[in-house]
Amino acid sequence: MATARNPLVTLLTDFGTRDPYVAQMKGTLLTICPQAQVVDITHEVAPQAVLEAAFILAQAAWCFPKGTVHVAVVDPEVGGERKILAAKIDGHYFLAPDNGLLSFVGEDRTLEELVSVRNVDFLPPPGAPMTFHGRDVFAPLAGRILNGLDLHRLGPQPQTYKLLDLTEPAMVGDDIVGQVIYIDRFGNLISNIPAATVSHQWPHMDNLRLTCAGRDAGTLQGTYSFVPPGQPLAVINSMGLVEVAVNLGLARDHFAAAIGSEVRIAQVRP
Amino acid sequence: MATARNPLVTLLTDFGTRDPYVAQMKGTLLTICPQAQVVDITHEVAPQAVLEAAFILAQAAWCFPKGTVHVAVVDPEVGGERKILAAKIDGHYFLAPDNGLLSFVGEDRTLEELVSVRNVDFLPPPGAPMTFHGRDVFAPLAGRILNGLDLHRLGPQPQTYKLLDLTEPAMVGDDIVGQVIYIDRFGNLISNIPAATVSHQWPHMDNLRLTCAGRDAGTLQGTYSFVPPGQPLAVINSMGLVEVAVNLGLARDHFAAAIGSEVRIAQVRP
Amino acid sequence: MATARNPLVTLLTDFGTRDPYVAQMKGTLLTICPQAQVVDITHEVAPQAVLEAAFILAQAAWCFPKGTVHVAVVDPEVGGERKILAAKIDGHYFLAPDNGLLSFVGEDRTLEELVSVRNVDFLPPPGAPMTFHGRDVFAPLAGRILNGLDLHRLGPQPQTYKLLDLTEPAMVGDDIVGQVIYIDRFGNLISNIPAATVSHQWPHMDNLRLTCAGRDAGTLQGTYSFVPPGQPLAVINSMGLVEVAVNLGLARDHFAAAIGSEVRIAQVRP
Repeated sequence: MATARNPLVTLLTDFGTRDPYVAQMKGTLLTICPQAQVVDITHEVAPQAVLEAAFILAQAAWCFPKGTVHVAVVDPEVGGERKILAAKIDGHYFLAPDNGLLSFVGEDRTLEELVSVRNVDFLPPPGAPMTFHGRDVFAPLAGRILNGLDLHRLGPQPQTYKLLDLTEPAMVGDDIVGQVIYIDRFGNLISNIPAATVSHQWPHMDNLRLTCAGRDAGTLQGTYSFVPPGQPLAVINSMGLVEVAVNLGLARDHFAAAIGSEVRIAQVRP
Repeated sequence: MATARNPLVTLLTDFGTRDPYVAQMKGTLLTICPQAQVVDITHEVAPQAVLEAAFILAQAAWCFPKGTVHVAVVDPEVGGERKILAAKIDGHYFLAPDNGLLSFVGEDRTLEELVSVRNVDFLPPPGAPMTFHGRDVFAPLAGRILNGLDLHRLGPQPQTYKLLDLTEPAMVGDDIVGQVIYIDRFGNLISNIPAATVSHQWPHMDNLRLTCAGRDAGTLQGTYSFVPPGQPLAVINSMGLVEVAVNLGLARDHFAAAIGSEVRIAQVRP
Repeated sequence: MATARNPLVTLLTDFGTRDPYVAQMKGTLLTICPQAQVVDITHEVAPQAVLEAAFILAQAAWCFPKGTVHVAVVDPEVGGERKILAAKIDGHYFLAPDNGLLSFVGEDRTLEELVSVRNVDFLPPPGAPMTFHGRDVFAPLAGRILNGLDLHRLGPQPQTYKLLDLTEPAMVGDDIVGQVIYIDRFGNLISNIPAATVSHQWPHMDNLRLTCAGRDAGTLQGTYSFVPPGQPLAVINSMGLVEVAVNLGLARDHFAAAIGSEVRIAQVRP
């Protein structure tokens, strides 16, 4: 007899880990689907930071196996008019409020199914609390999808859904100019410049010099330790994006950088 | 052949997530009950904050299915004279030091069994370390209860056990006056005023005006986004309690509020 | 038919819990070994703090059952020349970069197997990203070991591997002089003085007086609450080490202590 894989579900919220909210979601989910294996992506998204959450979701989701249900709840309009989306993308399931959380996770992927959850059988009754759809809507939906519920039972395909704009890097003269879109725990400055944009402009990626927030960020290296401790550098990081770092240091502080700071790549004379 | 549900256990401590302590509890538990599914409620309770932990436990526990074992270890008197309690309440199991941690989880619930753990077979031998009962007493007990151990084997029913006082809201003239008892990650101010107290006083719950720490908190809304960003409001929250909030803001800062700050509800002339 | 235990794996990193990195490791691992049960030891090690991580690993690992795979990734030289180690110690498996992370976990234990991962079948291909071996090397290796892969398939036994020095306590006159090596969330000051060193010097462990950073730390107690609130004390802690604490207070602040602060034990006249 084959042992079935546990149904796998990930959670990504801005609830933090001190309050009872995440446990309330997990308990609700495990009541409906006791076999579920629950993995936290993060609960440390800044409160209401939809863009940050959308970026993290897109980076993390595709490392999980097909069939995983990803629940993303950063939901400033909880209980309001915003739709509740359920999607199937490249074999993964996603549940999120319609506020842009799914903006990046679908890039270069096949959207197989998308519905707006309108079936009242899957929504709280009128008069129920409206402030915690993580526990009262998303967790039960995730449990039922893990149990095999088809998305099309939840509601119709929406005519539109919300997509966030992520500024694209631009050519300024011969330079590629992008910006910092994410800063991680190590103070690394992750830009919106994909490796492919760099290699398209300069196929050999040689003699490139980077600046961040106007300060010298050195050259593209294979990894952090290829420069001495304390020295700035750039890498094509594990997400396939240009990242500005300081070996064993905090690039965020070294460059006095923030989300939106300019990252510029130029080819210099050899 | 039916697949049995994994035995489910929750952990709630003030140990934080950096030190080895939580992992030591989990490893000990999984050595005794390898099938256990361990869910963290939180480990971010302020050190020694029994009241905070008791509140979080009461909010989170009932979302889990019957049969779950809940282990709560905020234990300023670890190794001292305080008793160790094991309880069965409405089909859930609870393990905690006898310091008030179980004060609220039993409210409006059926206490089916309560024992003081005295059987030396389940306690460390004399001379064993006394400073980490989370690892040395609570985790092994939880593992054994998950494996089917009956509570009555652990010891006798205690004659008394400790209950914390949670101040009740009061009527002052025609107003309901309560206080802030919990502040969450979003800065929301959760009061000790149940929805039922409000609807008992004003069955239509209309024309109500709230103040918090003496400042205007607006009216009762269905959810946060029903007022413009930055504006204060009140809701009946997902716990069934009156909560003062600021849409997309931090009520804690807006009201300069803390645990104990006054929350007052009055009916105004329409 | 016996139900097999889930294959158990622990993770210990300095990645924090906000970024996508830990989830990327978990998703990769669960794709390769869907039955894996993943337990976080911690992800809150200070960035690049190998010594801190090595200490936490040695405290936590042995609470887990034999067969557990422990993955420790604090890896300042990721992608560089440092080796990747796989070890079997007393029936547990360990994966870590060769930077000292395994220094303490093997103390007084049997090193059954140690290999340097050189087999290119288990390493990223040339040109692959070099900055995130947690996701690209360690998680896949852990999944394969959980699936039954033998360590000797990974590479040869290394001629050397890195061990950190942990300063040993010394006798100064008749006193034992050690130092603070770890400070926990409660502000407790954990020293490098094992209980056995104390009992070897003073078999009855009586009339001992401690100081920390030059200030009086009282006498050895059974547990924290044996002195009044706010009063300093010392205990033989749950790790078997001398620890300086303040009952219901923060010893770190009381003693203005830091890693490296002196802890001294003297016998006084009765």
